[in-house]
Amino acid sequence: MMDTLSVIKIGGNIIDHPERLLAVMKDFAALEGPKILVHGGGKIATTIGDRLGIESRYESGRRITDEATLELVTMVYGGLVNKGIVAMLQSLGCNAIGLTGGDGNCIKAVVRPVGTVDYGFAGDIPEEGVNASFLHLLLQSGFTPVLAPLTHDGKGQLLNTNADTIAQEIAKSLAKRMPVKLVYCFEKGGVLMDAVDEASVIPHIDRALFEKLQAEHIITDGMIPKVSNALAAVQAGVNAVAIGRAEDLSDIVSGTKGTHIK
Amino acid sequence: MMDTLSVIKIGGNIIDHPERLLAVMKDFAALEGPKILVHGGGKIATTIGDRLGIESRYESGRRITDEATLELVTMVYGGLVNKGIVAMLQSLGCNAIGLTGGDGNCIKAVVRPVGTVDYGFAGDIPEEGVNASFLHLLLQSGFTPVLAPLTHDGKGQLLNTNADTIAQEIAKSLAKRMPVKLVYCFEKGGVLMDAVDEASVIPHIDRALFEKLQAEHIITDGMIPKVSNALAAVQAGVNAVAIGRAEDLSDIVSGTKGTHIK
Repeated sequence: MMDTLSVIKIGGNIIDHPERLLAVMKDFAALEGPKILVHGGGKIATTIGDRLGIESRYESGRRITDEATLELVTMVYGGLVNKGIVAMLQSLGCNAIGLTGGDGNCIKAVVRPVGTVDYGFAGDIPEEGVNASFLHLLLQSGFTPVLAPLTHDGKGQLLNTNADTIAQEIAKSLAKRMPVKLVYCFEKGGVLMDAVDEASVIPHIDRALFEKLQAEHIITDGMIPKVSNALAAVQAGVNAVAIGRAEDLSDIVSGTKGTHIK
Repeated sequence: MMDTLSVIKIGGNIIDHPERLLAVMKDFAALEGPKILVHGGGKIATTIGDRLGIESRYESGRRITDEATLELVTMVYGGLVNKGIVAMLQSLGCNAIGLTGGDGNCIKAVVRPVGTVDYGFAGDIPEEGVNASFLHLLLQSGFTPVLAPLTHDGKGQLLNTNADTIAQEIAKSLAKRMPVKLVYCFEKGGVLMDAVDEASVIPHIDRALFEKLQAEHIITDGMIPKVSNALAAVQAGVNAVAIGRAEDLSDIVSGTKGTHIK
């Protein structure tokens, strides 16, 4: 049987803390089987942007990417963060290779259409946007792709793209070739029955339970799109999606911690 | 017969001018056969460093790389410049993949020993430092590696490494597997008989002529290490080394312009 591919997404809360990042990368490096890491940006882009006099602007929780901001995130996400993680993983015996969507034409995106908000150089990933054969070649050759949250449009333009979306589209695309487990790491132990009780992690969620918990206002706000996207990924062929704390990565992958969505 | 690999090094003078860069990248994308691009940094690192309050310090023409400077060059060389070139090449039909020495353990270096000067996080490439089998795999799979002037030490540390050196070590390493032509692009049409006469390009130099021209003080200063390194590369198995203007890239590769060292 073919090995299961683990697609792991880590967010800014880990990237901003070098010691926590190292601990999580040790667990990631130790994961068996083929794997892909997708990382977000972290506060460092805002910190460096402030020093450069580049204002961070958000609309509905999404960064507005003007030209100066695109240069900033290309430097910070594509350079500082991505290459730092790659060097760290190499030191841990994991043959990492850092990529943006431009590298090997890995992820081709389209500029988000201007509606009520102009997000600037923000890229959405269309159907077939992920170059699965390239990623598959790297995995087969023993490499671990490490994706920065940047794509390109194929016409020379880099684009800022949400890391959750990149992880999801990669998982869906590779699920056509091999079994895939997708793990979203965030700041809580999983989806909670009680938002203030860390021990109340719901271990398993399917569509029926999601609808019940939503109706009862137990799953609210930011958790709704997370679980909804996870169910959509499962629907699209991803074998399992899990949500949990980055520090619990090994236990989430083995299934003993986090919320598992099927 | 096996195709000849072209290893092309471009410097800061091209990178600092987007229109010149685009013109040169069009010629590069059109080059037939397997190819590798190695790029330097350009003034943009200094410009952004100034905005961040990071002082650029040099000793004997080499940058002193303290921690802040390493972060700066990782952002600018590994992110902004490298990913910009990759996206540009992709738009020109060249399947580029951007790399630092950490990616795929491409180039492992050692920190330059502290002598009279402490260069900080500067990496020298030892014998066997270049991962030729990785680069060969990418070339065989139809990719064009684009190298930023950064290496790693295998222990998690990125290092700043001269782009000329990276180009030379890659050329020497791959020359054991395939015929290699190494081209150094710089701001002149080649090695000149008369420093102020651009038409006085010396078309061919071998060791005997180099020694004669050096004795006659025709080749001086910065050209001595360039030609000397080129002769060393030929000695180490590189089939041909050429020096010339980036805008003449196609003609240098075909042999009608530039100085050719054998």
